[in-house]
Amino acid sequence: MSGTVSPLAPVSLPEMPVVPGVRIATVKAGIKYKDRVDLLAMLFETGTTVAGVLTRSRCPSAPVELCRENLPGGKARILVVNAGNANAFTGSKGRHTTAVAARSAAEAAGCDEGEVFLSSTGVIGEPLDHSHFERHLNGMAASARADGWVDAARAIMTTDTFPKLVTRRVNLGDATVTINGIAKGAGMIAPDMATMLAYVATDAALSANVLRALLERFTPTTFNAITVDSDTSTSDTLLAFATGQAKDAPAITDPADPRLAEFATAFGDCLHELALMIVRDGEGATKLVRVDVTGAVSDVSAKNIAMAIANSPLVKTAITGEDANWGRVVMAVGKAGEPADRDRLAIWFGDLLVASEGERVPGYSEEEASAYMKNDEIVIRADIGLGDGRFTAWTCNLTKEYVAINGDYRS
Amino acid sequence: MSGTVSPLAPVSLPEMPVVPGVRIATVKAGIKYKDRVDLLAMLFETGTTVAGVLTRSRCPSAPVELCRENLPGGKARILVVNAGNANAFTGSKGRHTTAVAARSAAEAAGCDEGEVFLSSTGVIGEPLDHSHFERHLNGMAASARADGWVDAARAIMTTDTFPKLVTRRVNLGDATVTINGIAKGAGMIAPDMATMLAYVATDAALSANVLRALLERFTPTTFNAITVDSDTSTSDTLLAFATGQAKDAPAITDPADPRLAEFATAFGDCLHELALMIVRDGEGATKLVRVDVTGAVSDVSAKNIAMAIANSPLVKTAITGEDANWGRVVMAVGKAGEPADRDRLAIWFGDLLVASEGERVPGYSEEEASAYMKNDEIVIRADIGLGDGRFTAWTCNLTKEYVAINGDYRS
Repeated sequence: MSGTVSPLAPVSLPEMPVVPGVRIATVKAGIKYKDRVDLLAMLFETGTTVAGVLTRSRCPSAPVELCRENLPGGKARILVVNAGNANAFTGSKGRHTTAVAARSAAEAAGCDEGEVFLSSTGVIGEPLDHSHFERHLNGMAASARADGWVDAARAIMTTDTFPKLVTRRVNLGDATVTINGIAKGAGMIAPDMATMLAYVATDAALSANVLRALLERFTPTTFNAITVDSDTSTSDTLLAFATGQAKDAPAITDPADPRLAEFATAFGDCLHELALMIVRDGEGATKLVRVDVTGAVSDVSAKNIAMAIANSPLVKTAITGEDANWGRVVMAVGKAGEPADRDRLAIWFGDLLVASEGERVPGYSEEEASAYMKNDEIVIRADIGLGDGRFTAWTCNLTKEYVAINGDYRS
Repeated sequence: MSGTVSPLAPVSLPEMPVVPGVRIATVKAGIKYKDRVDLLAMLFETGTTVAGVLTRSRCPSAPVELCRENLPGGKARILVVNAGNANAFTGSKGRHTTAVAARSAAEAAGCDEGEVFLSSTGVIGEPLDHSHFERHLNGMAASARADGWVDAARAIMTTDTFPKLVTRRVNLGDATVTINGIAKGAGMIAPDMATMLAYVATDAALSANVLRALLERFTPTTFNAITVDSDTSTSDTLLAFATGQAKDAPAITDPADPRLAEFATAFGDCLHELALMIVRDGEGATKLVRVDVTGAVSDVSAKNIAMAIANSPLVKTAITGEDANWGRVVMAVGKAGEPADRDRLAIWFGDLLVASEGERVPGYSEEEASAYMKNDEIVIRADIGLGDGRFTAWTCNLTKEYVAINGDYRS
């Protein structure tokens, strides 16, 4: 938790309703941070389903391995998350810590170890002491209450400057159900499961395969469409839980169930909003940047081009300088390795067409373009002019503060 | 040309001998920079051969297109380079400027337009006035002299903080021949032809196919093994010229000619040295970083892993913080998408083994590691433990100065 809050932070936190079937406890375990909550336990009613998406890193953290093992079961009773230490690249010690934590959590929740989900976030490579979990989890399970969502979001922060929360109420069949979500992440954010950590819980009654289908549908355009610095974390984890405790909630077991429509939209909105909050809290960020690529030969090609633009240090520093430097956008399109034809390329900053057919547009106004770049939220659009492929990516600018944060983080 | 010289700059410029068959002229054309040389003409004797490597950008500059057109001919009489304007993404105007410049150059050198080579470096997207070439080239050809190598290196600088020069004298058959090279580049430097601009000239008598073979042999491990910021320029150009004017120089027409051995080594050294100078002048750089990857499943896999480490903003900022943050090296190995097994991975900073078999080594000394990180030149080694694949990449650290330079460059 940094001293200064991102200028892109939401002005206020949402009022978080309870999610029937979910109870929350947080403590100050002192794992790395002093005098702040850094350990979260979220307890779920019997019958809660779970689905998730995990980092594709070849060097995943020990807790990610545990989640990967337990997700096929589709059932969850307890989620335990600590901040300050990622328990990644900690070898057999790390696996031992995870095993002890899972056992303690299962005992505390009175459940099977296969219904336990763990995440750790923070420094890589430092052994994580398992006694934190042994010492706290029983008491946390006993004291957990329904209304601790803001504390939960705070407990999982590392270099985040604000807690990330989202909530929606929607109709599902004859029931009204709630979707709550929290996330953390500010650096080491890149396309392959870019969340760092995000958790969404609902009291809808959804089977695990329905939850999985929803994640598959919405992850590509939300969490996998953001990038802060192109670095993929060893710990990225997105988990969704459905307790089924909403009054009269219909049991949905088929992803194609038409009753799911409104819920699915709201669920997608939640993921989108959480993903954007992570970009808004990008380390050192002062601008939120949307990159729209259209006219590529395919959607995949459009994504590669969008990510080449969104990850270009030169594009990102130009935005910091409030410089409408579309030449660097051309450069990024050119380096993406995707089909592109310089002489068909068109580029907009916001609604301002700055270049088309391979050159600056006649009547281009540097003043107008520069005025647009002063906004907090910038839209860059590149039309490749070759096909119908499109993708939208979100990123933030690259500032001296990013360098300061990451040059000092560990020491 | 920045006010402050990179702390990694060589302490002095080499004494540059003449290369028989090469004459040089520079002028202050005032294309963008005031009161400094910014236009270079290099004239070659009849019979000079040429080979080159050009950017793989899909949005190449107009002069790159001209070089691509003329390289198959294998003959060169004049090279013209301007700094301050890249003539990239300038549409039909840009092509017109290139055509006019090529015609003026051919007239000035008294040669065919197919023997003209052009490069432009600087801002992208601004029209480049062709009158600069029409006005200056005739006079430059008339006044060109053999000893202008340092001026030549200065004339092609943009954000470079020092001129980049290299020279070697070697035996070739019964002759002693000279190899001189110059380069420029400090930002927008990435794996796919990472030079920005580099020119090497020799008085050896080498056929164009021999020059091509030498470039193919040495480019992958020199210019294509460096990265400053992962951004590939629209203008990257490496050209090699052989005048054949050395006394008694044997005519080499077969790349496999055994007489070529000593020359080839020296030629490779020149490319290596120029490539490293570009990294040493990486925008804002204060540390030169070598990344050795060994034990990968293949050399290609090793290169991908090395570049993932070398391009990671988190690794690069940790180096700025003089922080032996090997956890971020693990992260970068994990995100490379190449076969890797966390529990076989070993990481060194310099000679210091910091992690092996998936965890920090026993007796790891933070003080010792931190002391090593204070060096100007840092070696990071990652052994993947899976095969014999290896690659060495060079990069520099990421500093606040990089952000400052690129947030202010155009405005």
